[in-house]
Amino acid sequence: MGGDHGLGVTVPASLAFLGQERAAQLILVGQKDLIEAELKKNRAENHPRITVRNASEVVRMDDPIEIALRRKKDSSMRVAIQMVRNGEADACVSAGNTGALMAISRYLLKTMPGVDRPAICAILPNQKNGPTYVLDLGANVDCAAEHLHQFALMGSALFANIEGNPRPKIGLLNVGTESIKGNEVVKKAGELLHTEHENGTLNFCGNVEGNDIFEGTCDVVVCDGFTGNVTLKAIEGLGRFFRNVLVSEFRSSLLNGLGALLAGKALKTIRQRLNPSRFNGACMLGLRGLVFKSHGSADAYAYECAIKRAHEAVKRSVLLRISTTMAELLQNSKDHQAAEKIKKENGIQEQETV
Amino acid sequence: MGGDHGLGVTVPASLAFLGQERAAQLILVGQKDLIEAELKKNRAENHPRITVRNASEVVRMDDPIEIALRRKKDSSMRVAIQMVRNGEADACVSAGNTGALMAISRYLLKTMPGVDRPAICAILPNQKNGPTYVLDLGANVDCAAEHLHQFALMGSALFANIEGNPRPKIGLLNVGTESIKGNEVVKKAGELLHTEHENGTLNFCGNVEGNDIFEGTCDVVVCDGFTGNVTLKAIEGLGRFFRNVLVSEFRSSLLNGLGALLAGKALKTIRQRLNPSRFNGACMLGLRGLVFKSHGSADAYAYECAIKRAHEAVKRSVLLRISTTMAELLQNSKDHQAAEKIKKENGIQEQETV
Repeated sequence: MGGDHGLGVTVPASLAFLGQERAAQLILVGQKDLIEAELKKNRAENHPRITVRNASEVVRMDDPIEIALRRKKDSSMRVAIQMVRNGEADACVSAGNTGALMAISRYLLKTMPGVDRPAICAILPNQKNGPTYVLDLGANVDCAAEHLHQFALMGSALFANIEGNPRPKIGLLNVGTESIKGNEVVKKAGELLHTEHENGTLNFCGNVEGNDIFEGTCDVVVCDGFTGNVTLKAIEGLGRFFRNVLVSEFRSSLLNGLGALLAGKALKTIRQRLNPSRFNGACMLGLRGLVFKSHGSADAYAYECAIKRAHEAVKRSVLLRISTTMAELLQNSKDHQAAEKIKKENGIQEQETV
Repeated sequence: MGGDHGLGVTVPASLAFLGQERAAQLILVGQKDLIEAELKKNRAENHPRITVRNASEVVRMDDPIEIALRRKKDSSMRVAIQMVRNGEADACVSAGNTGALMAISRYLLKTMPGVDRPAICAILPNQKNGPTYVLDLGANVDCAAEHLHQFALMGSALFANIEGNPRPKIGLLNVGTESIKGNEVVKKAGELLHTEHENGTLNFCGNVEGNDIFEGTCDVVVCDGFTGNVTLKAIEGLGRFFRNVLVSEFRSSLLNGLGALLAGKALKTIRQRLNPSRFNGACMLGLRGLVFKSHGSADAYAYECAIKRAHEAVKRSVLLRISTTMAELLQNSKDHQAAEKIKKENGIQEQETV
């Protein structure tokens, strides 16, 4: 139901996704009559791999978290997350109100042991043609150094398990690369991460700056949710600006129009490589369940990308893997108690340490 | 002497600037023999509008502020700022160590009345083909709400006097537009700015998000130096990424190459509109003197733009105007004492209030 465009985007995106992924099944959660009407409009009212689950209420984009959490107990968001909790669904994807999605997820799914606060992790492209994971992107606007430390552990675990690189390079977003740089929180976080590097828990490569996100200097960029959110939105704003300049200049004269026609393939590749939709679908990390957040303004293609990302995480057993990796990291780190708890819950057997 | 490229950039930039501005004069401050050798290399050893002023030391990019401030008393940076203080120069432009430049400027020039901390203000392009002023970009990594309040007053005064718009729209950079959004500092700053809007001091349009910088939602965007610095560098990183994708795709095939040739004019305009060099030259705002900071990595064209910006500020008597505007703003605001002080210093006569 969520996002700026609602079912007009989420239903076509679901159908496109199912067209690509022949073994996947989707449960569409929301106002049943509206969803079925939209399916009918798309000639898919009897799709064999779609189930519709009714939820009478909708969390609005401007609903305060309190309303979403306490009042709307039959919202599509809440019902969907409850299904993840019950094991009826493997993951939840939503384009709705971020604050509400995080609060409901936290309330129903709880956080992993060793995690005080879940974080939102997005994947951005870099000049090395690889991904840069960035977290937190807005779940935590006031962070202590310990939270940044946990974000680093979670980001490292996610990257390791999705990208198949056991020692991802972790960078701490700062105003300069020297360790004396930054505000008090980030300086202290730098010390914690340095200790984790010394004891072999993390591959911490020190402070990085804003431009390093795109230069691929490190694999995972850690920051507080305020900085991360502002930076991400500024990046998106610049992306749109750039695209508009590109389009308007190529349309501005006949000769340019002809040139653009001939340059069509390059322009298409450029649009494709820089298309922010491809990177839609941020992971809410640190929960005992998979929840993915699509942009509210996502179009059908972007929303399909977010579903794909959730599907990929399910296929790769990312949740179990992250739990395992987190337990290992915490074992090396200071938080042994949390590590034991994770292992016990996941039935992970104690291994001999070399 | 400063910047990543030193005299190889600053001297040609100075000559290009003087070629454009026929009435301007430049004082090149630094190691005299090296500067004169560079001038000779550019066949300008006897340029009638260039004076060379010797300074035996150089502040390095990685010098701690303490070293720059206390040890290197004959650095080019310090000598240049001292000349501004003495009235021998109207403005100082440097591509050197930002922290050192700010610390020395603050020490020698002092801050304006009503200003606790100077801020760095850059001008970015927006989709409305106008400028967006953003401050602070790194002078203050730990800010209280009162500092953001002062940045808003300074930014408003700068925009008003450079752009000739007496009521610039001020936005507070945040993670959402609703007033309940953000961390504690930004929420409190929002309240202070709202009060200033109510009493007519500022034209505060509320919270803005990262993307608003490029959408031209407001004229001046206020943020703490940590967020501002990270965001600016991320934007620059993305800009370089875009440019590289553009260039590499157009070169990747002969047909694309031909298309690019025909699309040449559009590409040139795009490069020009998006060229970050055009926007080089950030103003160190809140000092009793004009100091402009060029990017360390600036090439000659970018450095020339920074000199132009400083020259423009001198021509428009920006320093006196800002002092006057700040006095007016502070008169309306709570800080009457500071307002009286500014007026007295600038010889501004008391006017009847309507």
